[in-house]
Amino acid sequence: MKIPKRGIGRRGLLAGAVLPVTAPPVAENAELATPPWTRSQGASVLESPYGRPSPFEGRVIRRPRGNPPVPTAASANTPLQDLHGIIVPNGLHYIRDHAGTPTIDPDQHRLLVHGEVERPLLFSMDDITRFPSVSRIHFLECSGNTPLWQAEQVNPRWTVQDTHGLLSCAEWTGVPLATVLAEAGVKPGATWMLAEGADGAAMTRSIPLAAVMDRAILAYAQNGERMRPEQGYPLRLFLPGFEGNTSVKWLRRLKLADAPFETREETSKYTGLLPDGSARQFVFIMEVKSVITHPSPSPTALRPGFREISGLAWSGNGRITGVEVSTDGGGTWQSAVLQTPVLPQCLTRFRLPWTWSGGPARLLSRATDDTGAVQPTRDALIAARGTNSDYHFNGIVKWQVDASGQVQLAL
Amino acid sequence: MKIPKRGIGRRGLLAGAVLPVTAPPVAENAELATPPWTRSQGASVLESPYGRPSPFEGRVIRRPRGNPPVPTAASANTPLQDLHGIIVPNGLHYIRDHAGTPTIDPDQHRLLVHGEVERPLLFSMDDITRFPSVSRIHFLECSGNTPLWQAEQVNPRWTVQDTHGLLSCAEWTGVPLATVLAEAGVKPGATWMLAEGADGAAMTRSIPLAAVMDRAILAYAQNGERMRPEQGYPLRLFLPGFEGNTSVKWLRRLKLADAPFETREETSKYTGLLPDGSARQFVFIMEVKSVITHPSPSPTALRPGFREISGLAWSGNGRITGVEVSTDGGGTWQSAVLQTPVLPQCLTRFRLPWTWSGGPARLLSRATDDTGAVQPTRDALIAARGTNSDYHFNGIVKWQVDASGQVQLAL
Repeated sequence: MKIPKRGIGRRGLLAGAVLPVTAPPVAENAELATPPWTRSQGASVLESPYGRPSPFEGRVIRRPRGNPPVPTAASANTPLQDLHGIIVPNGLHYIRDHAGTPTIDPDQHRLLVHGEVERPLLFSMDDITRFPSVSRIHFLECSGNTPLWQAEQVNPRWTVQDTHGLLSCAEWTGVPLATVLAEAGVKPGATWMLAEGADGAAMTRSIPLAAVMDRAILAYAQNGERMRPEQGYPLRLFLPGFEGNTSVKWLRRLKLADAPFETREETSKYTGLLPDGSARQFVFIMEVKSVITHPSPSPTALRPGFREISGLAWSGNGRITGVEVSTDGGGTWQSAVLQTPVLPQCLTRFRLPWTWSGGPARLLSRATDDTGAVQPTRDALIAARGTNSDYHFNGIVKWQVDASGQVQLAL
Repeated sequence: MKIPKRGIGRRGLLAGAVLPVTAPPVAENAELATPPWTRSQGASVLESPYGRPSPFEGRVIRRPRGNPPVPTAASANTPLQDLHGIIVPNGLHYIRDHAGTPTIDPDQHRLLVHGEVERPLLFSMDDITRFPSVSRIHFLECSGNTPLWQAEQVNPRWTVQDTHGLLSCAEWTGVPLATVLAEAGVKPGATWMLAEGADGAAMTRSIPLAAVMDRAILAYAQNGERMRPEQGYPLRLFLPGFEGNTSVKWLRRLKLADAPFETREETSKYTGLLPDGSARQFVFIMEVKSVITHPSPSPTALRPGFREISGLAWSGNGRITGVEVSTDGGGTWQSAVLQTPVLPQCLTRFRLPWTWSGGPARLLSRATDDTGAVQPTRDALIAARGTNSDYHFNGIVKWQVDASGQVQLAL
């Protein structure tokens, strides 16, 4: 029996698909010769009480973008180019911290709730986990993700891990903030809340209570297991849709007040400098955004033929309602299929069949959310905000495919 | 300022909650003395390219139930008592294999599709991943999970990891089987499909095509990353709702035919022996089932007071529509809250507030799915099927709480 070695053929499900592989037919017995792993016993379950990825996936790791100038005030990006679906495994969730990752003994950890409350309370982790809990799948994105404001700082060899990898998504479990604050009793004048971390930076942010009361959780688990140390073990604030740094990790204190606390991280940092020299302060929501992850910039050239285009879309304001994809630099657009369930403040995977015929192409995606907001072009974003900001870039990005199949970031 | 150290108080959100902690008030400055991890820099992101759980979570691992007689034909159970939400992290997904876990080079791996097809095809992993893909969150359960058929084999010290831990849930990404078979062209008479693994057992099962065509996928990713070796890296068949062994791992061959192949794993194994000596063969669907995971059998005694009861419900036939919980051995039942989204062939987390007043209690859960099927009692299940079977136990289980707070399995 002769067996053609091939992928998607002309008679496949998808109109327009072409034969991508032209390797000669091979004989069945030649190709199905018993490989060494079928001729031997494999590893025992006893060798893997807590598993690891295959050794063949060793390149799939978190990486800093460039060398961090201070190793304990740094970030490490998620390899979006190697991921599928929407869940990011805990070992690859992006990291951003200001004084490194502490190793906290959960039995010694405490959360103090005080300030403008009727009853100041001090909680152990056991106290926290006895409360009613919720589990929700949400994205988390660093406000500094996608640093494409200043053209001169852009490296054309960046991958999607470099440009968008301060973005991850997980199922978070914890206690609603509203439950814990109801225990303490919020005084009528309390409108802001200070959240403080137990790390060496004692990271602090002021949070407007009204904006988060219906959705904030004190999270202790991530994709089923207790939260990883880099994500705030044993407890973090989690604010769905807010910029990542406000979901304060290693949470040890919540203090209520009638005004923001004007901490370092909301005055000298995490503000957006506008062209007129004024700063946008307390810009919390990560706005509608999307990016194509397959294909995306890579040292490996594309092969002509059929492949699926897929990527991620998200909005801190709600649900994604549509993603359009262009393969000709924005000349024409096609609606991508959204993978269900489409959840609020969650990554949504989109997909579009594509046949690359071998010529130059320019791949773009543009997301819309259920508030009607449409992801802007980079030009429109810069026209509105200038180029002094370091944060909240949600513009459309372009992947340039040249005739050889090389894919690169283009501005 | 005096701060009472406490959890959920009498003025809490939940009617009937009582003060669970009676520790004396503590001074704020005493309890919020700066811990050592706030006085030092933590670990750099560079130390954690692929992260691990906190060292304080070292007990949360997969464990075999007892000592496996053959270390490479064994299973290892998921620690459900330590998990939250519905996603199981990849490192803790249960394992069942027949010749250990092989280490397969994905570049050398091939999938042959042959038998009653118009065009026999041989696929590389690159061929497979160029196809249009889908991502879905599904449970996987071993048909041998919950071995409570024979009372004399039950160990009263089993935990929920022992009784129900051959159950996990993940987001699986892959190519619809229907897409791949359409490429090969299914001949009219083909009704069954042999799936063969590349492990040392060359694990084989016959699958009825009509029952899986709308939902089967050839999966290559699990919770975002490429599938773990123990789960079938680089490729497995995934049959939502079917008993786990039919989702053949390390998939290397699909052969179509007009009848089942009557392999060892569907004749001498994975059949259900009935009281009259006949065997139920090709019993694929994992029927409606649930279990309480918090609280569940543990060496640590419960403390009186408020706590949340929570657990997992699932059905291979569809969606969970309701879970009832009893704390008095089945005398009275209350409806639990189901965590949304409730997805088909997926774990559903249920929750119910509970105050344990210190006396004996007996905790049960009973699930219903959208076909109207209700989880049976163990007695009803045994009346129907006898006690000769090793598979497909989906009966209600009971956790007995004694006056000291000890929780144990009871039949």
